[in-house]
Amino acid sequence: MDNLTEPDIDTINQAHNRIKNYIHRTPIHSSQLLNKIIGAEIYFKCENFQKVGAFKSRGAVNAVYSLSEDQLKYGVCTHSSGNHAQALARAAKLRNIKAFIVMPENSPIVKVDAVKQYSGEITFCKPTLEARENTIKEIIKKTKATEIHPYNDYRIIAGQATAAKEFIEDRPELDIIMVPVGGGGLLSGTALAIRFLSPKTRVIAAEPENANDAYRSFNAKKFYPSIEPKTIADGLLTSLGTLTFPIIIKYVDQIVTVSEPTIIEAMKLIWERLKIIIEPSSAVPLASMMENKFDFQNKKIGIIISGGNIDLNKVPF
Amino acid sequence: MDNLTEPDIDTINQAHNRIKNYIHRTPIHSSQLLNKIIGAEIYFKCENFQKVGAFKSRGAVNAVYSLSEDQLKYGVCTHSSGNHAQALARAAKLRNIKAFIVMPENSPIVKVDAVKQYSGEITFCKPTLEARENTIKEIIKKTKATEIHPYNDYRIIAGQATAAKEFIEDRPELDIIMVPVGGGGLLSGTALAIRFLSPKTRVIAAEPENANDAYRSFNAKKFYPSIEPKTIADGLLTSLGTLTFPIIIKYVDQIVTVSEPTIIEAMKLIWERLKIIIEPSSAVPLASMMENKFDFQNKKIGIIISGGNIDLNKVPF
Repeated sequence: MDNLTEPDIDTINQAHNRIKNYIHRTPIHSSQLLNKIIGAEIYFKCENFQKVGAFKSRGAVNAVYSLSEDQLKYGVCTHSSGNHAQALARAAKLRNIKAFIVMPENSPIVKVDAVKQYSGEITFCKPTLEARENTIKEIIKKTKATEIHPYNDYRIIAGQATAAKEFIEDRPELDIIMVPVGGGGLLSGTALAIRFLSPKTRVIAAEPENANDAYRSFNAKKFYPSIEPKTIADGLLTSLGTLTFPIIIKYVDQIVTVSEPTIIEAMKLIWERLKIIIEPSSAVPLASMMENKFDFQNKKIGIIISGGNIDLNKVPF
Repeated sequence: MDNLTEPDIDTINQAHNRIKNYIHRTPIHSSQLLNKIIGAEIYFKCENFQKVGAFKSRGAVNAVYSLSEDQLKYGVCTHSSGNHAQALARAAKLRNIKAFIVMPENSPIVKVDAVKQYSGEITFCKPTLEARENTIKEIIKKTKATEIHPYNDYRIIAGQATAAKEFIEDRPELDIIMVPVGGGGLLSGTALAIRFLSPKTRVIAAEPENANDAYRSFNAKKFYPSIEPKTIADGLLTSLGTLTFPIIIKYVDQIVTVSEPTIIEAMKLIWERLKIIIEPSSAVPLASMMENKFDFQNKKIGIIISGGNIDLNKVPF
């Protein structure tokens, strides 16, 4: 697929066909006791069990397997210190092409090693926006690699949309689907898939209060960047993108925000009750229910667990 | 079923039919990276996702649903401060009968609450063997309840056998099946199921060095009790039983032991790589591979993850 047109249902179906041999169709878990505590029927789609431990594998595989023969020769590049870096390196390795990854020089060793393990070629840069953009530009100039942005890319958005597609195929009765929102790749993909496949299902995103750019942008219908975000949900620090924001404005029903202590409480509750490891970002939707941020009583709620990559030496409880 | 005859394959099949509407057929997970680290193809059957978070639900449901009409009137009783207490209380509640649970007075509040949540009627006793046995005797005298021992009971053993039955049905190619061993309910059930269903598959149990009564008893072919066991694997403190030991002698291929630090390391590795919460006891089989205690290179190994009930405020890393 190209990267010029907002994905429609055909694009999403094609993405799903393109990636399905390289990703897991992740299971859906639930807990009767958790449902009793919260007062709703909640289903969790476990993208923490996805390849590289996060939904990011979907978009990365779709992007890499959408490249032209010509593009394949030169490989791909991106800036990311998180799950997208690993996911892109893995996708590139699957297709036997190069992945150039720009990471801030203060990235945790564990994340650097994770990229190396998939043979990603890392270039370190100063941890500033300017240094990152200059470094990426230099790499593109030198290598002719295709940049695959972590979320502001229609190939990525179409790939992430496949999580919600699977979810609504497996649970067509859902009243609401929830995802956390950072750059908006998962959210815009989810909103597109659900609008096409289940118009009756509401799409609600949850965001940390301390990184509430999407909340503010959505409600003002005007883009606000993320300014000095500070949250334990380290996957949600980024601002919306020029491609994700318009989709979110059009198709998302509501964005709610939550406090840091509730994110930690929700994460612990999911660990305890579902016996699964999730990263803090994935706890944000449940946290918004614990803070009663929208009407969910007795409804069927689907939450996409975005990932399970967390440093176990830094568990906040 | 009665409680007088060692289970055969018919008994195990009947147990499976009896319980299957009340338990989960748990999924099997694996991690390519973990396999690479260890050098074997390892499959984990996730009984941490079982009802009450442990395989104990299988035996408890089988026992309760095997009671005669007459026995049903008076309910069931047991002594347990662990997963069996919850599992029995839940099974009794499902069948709308009483469950009398004897717990040591120093039991953690969280375990007491878990039993209460399933309407179990708790009697506290001093934390000694004598006090426990006297208290159980008094309850039986007063209530006529049927005692369901946590592991020294053929109904329990036949129920626990269904985990290995499902495992070998789903993965008939396994070279080895591993379980942790405490009282031997899971181990004897596993050994029976595998002998009947897949004689080519070896059954290996793993036990903490600091609670190595099964290891010593198995090798000496003579019963040794567990003396002052001290291990983080708190599900494995008990001695083998008079019913479990003979089955283990007959049908188990090997018992290996592991050190405490490796149990913790194995638990962390499973949390990190499989993104699942397991209790320390469940890490003991993988720990034995990390300590190279038997020949597993390039073999297909199935490990039954016994449970996922752990106090998240006391994680050892």
